[in-house]
Amino acid sequence: MTAGMYSSFITSHWFSAEAKLIWSDTATLQAWLDVEAALAAAQAQLGLVPVEAAETIALKAQAGLFDTQKLAEEIAFAQHPLVPVLHQFEALCGDAAAAFVHLGATTQNIFDTAVALQMRRTHRLIEDDVRKAVMALCTLADAHKNTLMAGRTHGQHALPMTFGFKVAGWLDELDRDFERLEARLATSFPACMGGAIGTFAAMGDKGREVETTMAQGLGLLPAGLPARASYDRANDYFTALALLAGTAQKIAEDVVFMQRTEIGETSEAFHMGKVGSSTMAQKRNPSTALLLVSLARMLRGRLPMALESMIRMDEGDSSATNVVDTLAPELAILAASVAQTLARLCEGLVVDPQAMRCNVDRTRGLINSEAAMMRLVPALGRPAAHRLLYEAAQQAQTDGTHLLAAVESHPLAQGRNLTGTLADALDPGSYVGQSATIAAETAQRLIRKWQRVPSCG
Amino acid sequence: MTAGMYSSFITSHWFSAEAKLIWSDTATLQAWLDVEAALAAAQAQLGLVPVEAAETIALKAQAGLFDTQKLAEEIAFAQHPLVPVLHQFEALCGDAAAAFVHLGATTQNIFDTAVALQMRRTHRLIEDDVRKAVMALCTLADAHKNTLMAGRTHGQHALPMTFGFKVAGWLDELDRDFERLEARLATSFPACMGGAIGTFAAMGDKGREVETTMAQGLGLLPAGLPARASYDRANDYFTALALLAGTAQKIAEDVVFMQRTEIGETSEAFHMGKVGSSTMAQKRNPSTALLLVSLARMLRGRLPMALESMIRMDEGDSSATNVVDTLAPELAILAASVAQTLARLCEGLVVDPQAMRCNVDRTRGLINSEAAMMRLVPALGRPAAHRLLYEAAQQAQTDGTHLLAAVESHPLAQGRNLTGTLADALDPGSYVGQSATIAAETAQRLIRKWQRVPSCG
Amino acid sequence: MTAGMYSSFITSHWFSAEAKLIWSDTATLQAWLDVEAALAAAQAQLGLVPVEAAETIALKAQAGLFDTQKLAEEIAFAQHPLVPVLHQFEALCGDAAAAFVHLGATTQNIFDTAVALQMRRTHRLIEDDVRKAVMALCTLADAHKNTLMAGRTHGQHALPMTFGFKVAGWLDELDRDFERLEARLATSFPACMGGAIGTFAAMGDKGREVETTMAQGLGLLPAGLPARASYDRANDYFTALALLAGTAQKIAEDVVFMQRTEIGETSEAFHMGKVGSSTMAQKRNPSTALLLVSLARMLRGRLPMALESMIRMDEGDSSATNVVDTLAPELAILAASVAQTLARLCEGLVVDPQAMRCNVDRTRGLINSEAAMMRLVPALGRPAAHRLLYEAAQQAQTDGTHLLAAVESHPLAQGRNLTGTLADALDPGSYVGQSATIAAETAQRLIRKWQRVPSCG
Amino acid sequence: MTAGMYSSFITSHWFSAEAKLIWSDTATLQAWLDVEAALAAAQAQLGLVPVEAAETIALKAQAGLFDTQKLAEEIAFAQHPLVPVLHQFEALCGDAAAAFVHLGATTQNIFDTAVALQMRRTHRLIEDDVRKAVMALCTLADAHKNTLMAGRTHGQHALPMTFGFKVAGWLDELDRDFERLEARLATSFPACMGGAIGTFAAMGDKGREVETTMAQGLGLLPAGLPARASYDRANDYFTALALLAGTAQKIAEDVVFMQRTEIGETSEAFHMGKVGSSTMAQKRNPSTALLLVSLARMLRGRLPMALESMIRMDEGDSSATNVVDTLAPELAILAASVAQTLARLCEGLVVDPQAMRCNVDRTRGLINSEAAMMRLVPALGRPAAHRLLYEAAQQAQTDGTHLLAAVESHPLAQGRNLTGTLADALDPGSYVGQSATIAAETAQRLIRKWQRVPSCG
Repeated sequence: MTAGMYSSFITSHWFSAEAKLIWSDTATLQAWLDVEAALAAAQAQLGLVPVEAAETIALKAQAGLFDTQKLAEEIAFAQHPLVPVLHQFEALCGDAAAAFVHLGATTQNIFDTAVALQMRRTHRLIEDDVRKAVMALCTLADAHKNTLMAGRTHGQHALPMTFGFKVAGWLDELDRDFERLEARLATSFPACMGGAIGTFAAMGDKGREVETTMAQGLGLLPAGLPARASYDRANDYFTALALLAGTAQKIAEDVVFMQRTEIGETSEAFHMGKVGSSTMAQKRNPSTALLLVSLARMLRGRLPMALESMIRMDEGDSSATNVVDTLAPELAILAASVAQTLARLCEGLVVDPQAMRCNVDRTRGLINSEAAMMRLVPALGRPAAHRLLYEAAQQAQTDGTHLLAAVESHPLAQGRNLTGTLADALDPGSYVGQSATIAAETAQRLIRKWQRVPSCG
Repeated sequence: MTAGMYSSFITSHWFSAEAKLIWSDTATLQAWLDVEAALAAAQAQLGLVPVEAAETIALKAQAGLFDTQKLAEEIAFAQHPLVPVLHQFEALCGDAAAAFVHLGATTQNIFDTAVALQMRRTHRLIEDDVRKAVMALCTLADAHKNTLMAGRTHGQHALPMTFGFKVAGWLDELDRDFERLEARLATSFPACMGGAIGTFAAMGDKGREVETTMAQGLGLLPAGLPARASYDRANDYFTALALLAGTAQKIAEDVVFMQRTEIGETSEAFHMGKVGSSTMAQKRNPSTALLLVSLARMLRGRLPMALESMIRMDEGDSSATNVVDTLAPELAILAASVAQTLARLCEGLVVDPQAMRCNVDRTRGLINSEAAMMRLVPALGRPAAHRLLYEAAQQAQTDGTHLLAAVESHPLAQGRNLTGTLADALDPGSYVGQSATIAAETAQRLIRKWQRVPSCG
Repeated sequence: MTAGMYSSFITSHWFSAEAKLIWSDTATLQAWLDVEAALAAAQAQLGLVPVEAAETIALKAQAGLFDTQKLAEEIAFAQHPLVPVLHQFEALCGDAAAAFVHLGATTQNIFDTAVALQMRRTHRLIEDDVRKAVMALCTLADAHKNTLMAGRTHGQHALPMTFGFKVAGWLDELDRDFERLEARLATSFPACMGGAIGTFAAMGDKGREVETTMAQGLGLLPAGLPARASYDRANDYFTALALLAGTAQKIAEDVVFMQRTEIGETSEAFHMGKVGSSTMAQKRNPSTALLLVSLARMLRGRLPMALESMIRMDEGDSSATNVVDTLAPELAILAASVAQTLARLCEGLVVDPQAMRCNVDRTRGLINSEAAMMRLVPALGRPAAHRLLYEAAQQAQTDGTHLLAAVESHPLAQGRNLTGTLADALDPGSYVGQSATIAAETAQRLIRKWQRVPSCG
Repeated sequence: MTAGMYSSFITSHWFSAEAKLIWSDTATLQAWLDVEAALAAAQAQLGLVPVEAAETIALKAQAGLFDTQKLAEEIAFAQHPLVPVLHQFEALCGDAAAAFVHLGATTQNIFDTAVALQMRRTHRLIEDDVRKAVMALCTLADAHKNTLMAGRTHGQHALPMTFGFKVAGWLDELDRDFERLEARLATSFPACMGGAIGTFAAMGDKGREVETTMAQGLGLLPAGLPARASYDRANDYFTALALLAGTAQKIAEDVVFMQRTEIGETSEAFHMGKVGSSTMAQKRNPSTALLLVSLARMLRGRLPMALESMIRMDEGDSSATNVVDTLAPELAILAASVAQTLARLCEGLVVDPQAMRCNVDRTRGLINSEAAMMRLVPALGRPAAHRLLYEAAQQAQTDGTHLLAAVESHPLAQGRNLTGTLADALDPGSYVGQSATIAAETAQRLIRKWQRVPSCG
């Protein structure tokens, strides 16, 4: 019997398998044990614990040695998530070492530091998939730096641009998103070892040194002031995940639109056997993009719960930590799944330059009305130029003529030869501004940057 | 100096002027005074207060008699919103009546009951505008019950349908939204008069009778158990407002899409002088629909704050009531503005049946692939029929041929004369199901219903 | 390997086991098959499908006959959740019946109707646990209708009341919460069978009759206009779940406060072996109440995602339905868990009347200052009475004297014998208003009501 | 007639008057004009615009010269917020300069860059008030570094600590909050001047240089790739505001609790004339803290709307920008009000060390049970020590004896002289760990840091 979308046979393939492994029960238990071992090692180094005890603790800190079925029962009975684990761990370590297990720590110290380890591994998954997406988008931006398409605002054609320019905008935002995550990872998830209320009371004067030493052993920063009622640090990272989700959703919604039956400018990778509908044989849905929208909403929609959990009574408050103890894994799995799905979407995107061009031409010159106005300003002044263009453009839309014809028949145009003035101004390709330059520069900059970044951890 | 979107010269026209009047400072003060007067009248009726005192109180319960500038200063000093009002009110009433002002009431009793009065007036505004929207949509549904257009799912053409059917779907949902509001209005906003903690301690044995009598006087239900820490009732109405906003946004986003430059199936009312852009003269943005989306988000986005404010310490908690004291007016103004903008959108919507038909035909038969499959099932069985259609439809999309041609050239079709079988199955008009019936029935049902409802209050 | 809080060994005991069973993969598959069988039966009844085919379909509609491992793989490949199920189902039914499987239906019809069946079962779980909570609270309200305690507002003592009155306030709200759920269940989760876009195109003229007949077979209402892009109905129920969560959280936070070390007025059920901390042996945390707060936040925090998913493109939109396909089970499991935890909390609550009385007396008369003022109004008039009490009360707080002493030493009291006037007004027990009546009445009313309601479904 | 909480006489005093000035209509119009002037100046510097025209534009860029009443009417008619402003501006500038007004810009360029200017000013307000709060808290942390109080977790006494340590935890978090805001201000609010879709089409090859030059003139960073559909940057700052609100709410809720009638450890500044209730004369509510909770919720609760507005159609989407055009001022005003109210709360906080000590002693030794266990581990081993303490502590709570007595009567203690071993371990003052050190260090570190930071802008 399985409940929950991550493991259901209906939806489990939506979610990153690697991320689910990182946050599985076994891996979580192992992360707890890794922290217990690092704590004992730090205490041994500082003379608080016998070296042999720390060695025994390290040796027995293996999830595989535990009876997890029994753990589940004991946890439900004790209504405490860690004490039963410690009992089994002490038994595994034997009398001599058992007394030095979990010395001076509180449950939340272990949990929070374990989350730091797991989140770091998830971060690398995210990085790998963001890199794939960035690389695929850089290729598209460069290849299509001159591919003409309609720039649209408020659902209407605005100005011509190139597809490469659009992709550059996605890239610029996506790169910033990951920059934020990278910059915040270490400070958002420090090692915490202040004991029950953060005063290090159970470790005497060496408490802060234990935290620092343990942190070094785990490759983390020490919390310094490990107030258990503080959660701004983790939330700083989680808000950046929400921004990543926002960017992914924006890209995905653009793709859904561009694949609309009537638009047809891009389409998702398709393989025979992919099914769009149980009855409509023709359907080629942008299902990856639509799934990406869904995953982004699931991630972004969970952020307020994380933010609310900053508000904690006094020195510790399980009504808040219960929420984030279960939410942090969800945010991590969802973020990795967003990145993975985004990479798949970007790598499979098929572009149809002909359809893009065809759409640009549908409005018979209107998309270049700003260009026309800029050209008429020297001759007519801005107010008259704007009035002429506004009236001619509305006329052209009402009766379906070409903008040029509508301009020519406008009273203000009588007696002037505007056709020559406007001829090339109405060529869409002439009014894409810095589209190509921005597309090419962005692609080159990000290829260089992302090739350099080594994946580790 | 003005701050805040409701009164800013940039955005004040987005919001219902009538709703802003209902929730203005003056009207709010008047609503408080109306409640104080009704309280005194009820107490006089039950012999707790001299009749003359209640009459004086009723006479002086006029916002225009108050010095609101002085009130603002006194409120800031006392850090209490009502006590300064009572002081001025007592002075207006004179010594004899002053002792009977606000007898046995607590501030929140006055505020909550005043909100009930203001919300009832806002509800009638909403009703009037929902009626306008319903009527306009009924006209469209009936007029276009046979107007063919593409039904779309997941951003792709699915099956043909009629525009009237689409509008019927909007109508059905919109009517349910208002039904909910209407059904909840009275129970969501009762009169409350239980005193400081809801025990009626300051009014002796007659407290509950005072509440009931006062409620009758105001045309409200009595709270019965006026626990100040309960807010489920008002939230019941507010959640229904969020559903109304959801429906409005769904309609608005459909309109934004149908007005897309490449789609052109509907468009918003336009008047010369409406400006889409400061530089692009051609722009005819669906600005009413886009504004409606924005207003709906502003309303829906505020709901979690109302829900959170149900969680109140003990018998009363200003950390929660401060939020809803300011949020309830915002929700009311936003809801009235959503309804008003929806009415404007629906009343001005221009339909282009030719563009709808043109879009249906773009996929060269694919939109009827389900119809074709249903036709082939008797001959081929469902699995073979689905396989033939799936492969033919994918082929047709890849090479741009008509679905019929792709079917005919499929191996499974060889030696069978499928052309005859499929000929009329591929006519989009033949496969709209109950579109017309549903459109007509829905329009008739709702016209009857909404014509009947008298507007009052 | 397990991920997800519902099945993790650390947290699975937080969640209703029965609810998880209802929403397990197996039960969900079974619900789909139940809908397919009901569809075929309805179609047989209306002559659209051979009776034998419908019988075969009913016979094979058993989740146990399916290869779910293979399903998971096929779903991931097809990127479609139902088509692989249909393939196995058709194979199980054999050629003759296979052609009549899923006739005229679309995937979402099956899913939504299955959710209706599962939600109805969940609703009965919720009802059972709300009944337990109501019954326990009725017992408390009646038993403690005269148990004096401090009424508190804004974190400060306000007026005296009784514990029974407080519980009556909880009860009144909780009962309304369930009333809403009960009233909305049927309309929120109708049977839907309109096909791909809701036009019944694949079932000819009998489509609406099929939906109605199938709905009767399943004990549901028919959708009538089964627009797939409408989701206001389900959201109407979900918003009521959020209100239930709000009430549960309010009760839980009251209990957390009353169990505070310094307050000690109530405490949760405790058993030896329940652990509050891994190191602090004395800890008796209100862990059930804290967990209830967490669960309520998890439920309430998910509502905005459901509301947002009302906004659906055109006639169907998987970017929205993906979200609710996974969210509906989460909301259901969380709601059942909230109800279950609330029942456990209420049934185990231990009351300490002595501590309540002790807290009332801590402020040396101040809690009755309103009573004192009401008594002085006849003698002094309201303004002077308020001024005297305000200044005396502030004085008493500053120097720790009894309110009576502070009143007596106030200038306005000189020459009047106020001690006699105030003596019994300062007895907390004399100023609890309708506390006892409301407590007793509420308990009696709800016991009668909830005993009557039969549990079924 | 005024609507809206910022200007209502009931609530306007809740909000920062300075922030409201920054975001008033007049100041907003001025900020737009400042951007227009900076644009013209940059274009003049690069030879795109005559120097005299730019000078005229700068000269006329004064909000005081505009007819704002007329503007409001024209904006409502044109349904465009800027074009009417430009018309008045052009008229003010005269024909020669008018043609160079707004050259190559789009409305959103002006709005976004103006918001950058206004947000920078708001940021300095926030800084000033955070500084006040930090300074007040540093004074408290240092003064009370040794003031003993109960550390609490899950609503129960946990370990002893000092009040200075608690304040240090607040400080550490608050300082991080501002660090984030400071680090993000410049990158979150760049100058944008890419024109209608961000391609700089209307400014030819010099467009990017214009943006850079204009940005320098305004003291901002240039956007570089001014994609109008990107909003991650502003949201990066807004999420940090939500974290600040979270910290403020946490502090405020701690204060509300500590001022509880039964706790009395701290209290807010009080002045005679401050009113807690319209009828209960004794009330001294923690109204500043409660207001701070409310303001923090209003701010945090609005964040999801900002995040959702990242999702923008194509190259620009007013359904999203409408929301943030009105939300950014609200977030700014709320953030400044949160900071201002936090400063007032911290500066006025009154501490009662005697009440703190009294509360520590209420549990008769139990608060030191961890200390006792640590002391017994060497003698008994950890499992036996924990068992002895657990059973003794539970016993002590059940029958109200002192922990020491309960330990002594425990079977495991028989025959051992534990009284001597435990005597000083049960002195609360002996088990506060690094409380004093952390309090003093944090105060010193932050005083040094915050004294250094110069306020400017």
